[in-house]
Amino acid sequence: MRYKLLLSYDGGCFNGWQKQTLGGKTVQGSVEEILAQLLNGKTRVLGSGRTDAGAHAVGQIAHFDSERVIDGEKFLKGFNAIAPEGLVAKAIFLAPDNFHALSSAVHKTYIYRIWNHPKLSVFQRKYSLWVQQPLDLEKLNDFSSVLLGLHDFRSFQTRGTPVKTTTREITKAEWRRRSGHNIEFRISGNGFLKQMVRNIVGTLLYLDRKGGTKADLEAILAAMDRQAAKATAPAQGLYLLRVDYPETLDNQCRKL
Amino acid sequence: MRYKLLLSYDGGCFNGWQKQTLGGKTVQGSVEEILAQLLNGKTRVLGSGRTDAGAHAVGQIAHFDSERVIDGEKFLKGFNAIAPEGLVAKAIFLAPDNFHALSSAVHKTYIYRIWNHPKLSVFQRKYSLWVQQPLDLEKLNDFSSVLLGLHDFRSFQTRGTPVKTTTREITKAEWRRRSGHNIEFRISGNGFLKQMVRNIVGTLLYLDRKGGTKADLEAILAAMDRQAAKATAPAQGLYLLRVDYPETLDNQCRKL
Repeated sequence: MRYKLLLSYDGGCFNGWQKQTLGGKTVQGSVEEILAQLLNGKTRVLGSGRTDAGAHAVGQIAHFDSERVIDGEKFLKGFNAIAPEGLVAKAIFLAPDNFHALSSAVHKTYIYRIWNHPKLSVFQRKYSLWVQQPLDLEKLNDFSSVLLGLHDFRSFQTRGTPVKTTTREITKAEWRRRSGHNIEFRISGNGFLKQMVRNIVGTLLYLDRKGGTKADLEAILAAMDRQAAKATAPAQGLYLLRVDYPETLDNQCRKL
Repeated sequence: MRYKLLLSYDGGCFNGWQKQTLGGKTVQGSVEEILAQLLNGKTRVLGSGRTDAGAHAVGQIAHFDSERVIDGEKFLKGFNAIAPEGLVAKAIFLAPDNFHALSSAVHKTYIYRIWNHPKLSVFQRKYSLWVQQPLDLEKLNDFSSVLLGLHDFRSFQTRGTPVKTTTREITKAEWRRRSGHNIEFRISGNGFLKQMVRNIVGTLLYLDRKGGTKADLEAILAAMDRQAAKATAPAQGLYLLRVDYPETLDNQCRKL
């Protein structure tokens, strides 16, 4: 049977999602170790995508196969009792056999958090990027409109595993003041390239700081060259908020 | 010259405010070490009160004396550059000689944060108390009205250094939903006994959970006996929000 797992983790506790041959506690590795204990046997876990070392997840989705019949409440209790610090399983679903955490995903939403104040917030230091200069949200929202729609986002891709296409469709890219000095950028799309959100945020912040224009951003996008964009924003501000699947698949998933 | 310092710290990084003879990094000890470096000499620092190990401060006040003339911007930059993780100096003031962080304080405000959800929030685990059962804010607010005014709070005092009087005046004690599953209790008064806020919160949560009544809380308060109250709520939910001084003293303080 195939199971779908909803996970949340504090990226600061892990060396990224992806299991690694050379040391470093990863989320994938930790989940596999927990499942090995709970299900009495080696279990492979696949995520909707890799999150970078230090990046957080409010709602990461993974799947695994097991012949064991799982009782939801008992499973979650057991999982969370032995999970390492900073990792929690929020829900488990029985999924159809053709459900695949990575290849079935049709939509993802990320948020990027900023503490925008001259003085560091000690409570946010691991959960936001600290930006001292006041940000112009209206300008950032104007910039962000350039990203909407179907574009080749090669300029915002960090080199890594080759991908078939660097074209992605962005359906939402919005800045808002969450409360007080907490600013949040929310971006949704049908998929994201490696470090794409962090590269976009780094570039938008650069343009805001340096008095750049919408035309500058259009030129960076059109260049289709990573050299055209600016520095990658740090991982600790990034959260994978949610992963969406086709309604037909969702309807076949049953919360345990 | 006497200086007044506004500090914020993540309690999880320190073994409380109070300098200790036997190991453990404390806030007071860390501030004294920073000042020794910045001002070239041993400097004693006095806080508005001791915060417990693990408890946070949004706005702790301390004072120290120095013959050095301090440039505010330079001082704060220097302080924050060498401060250990989780400690930040937010402002410095030149204070009158009779200003005393502890004995001049006339009013303090604490907040206690709760993550009220069946599942742990990995992002809140060090910054809130996790309470799984839904809290009844209306009932908690009704309970809290009992605390308002002048009372002997001996029932909510953890044994420690003897104090002259256990009578305190509480001017505000309110529960509210900050956002979503984040609940906040805010309490203000002219002073607080050792672990008083944590003992109050532990008792209110117990009464809410066990179907207690306002009369139960009145009886606990009237007992003037720590045994009558319930368990101390953990430190990681507690924040010293602000310390207030008489207006006449404030008017004599000059932000540097």
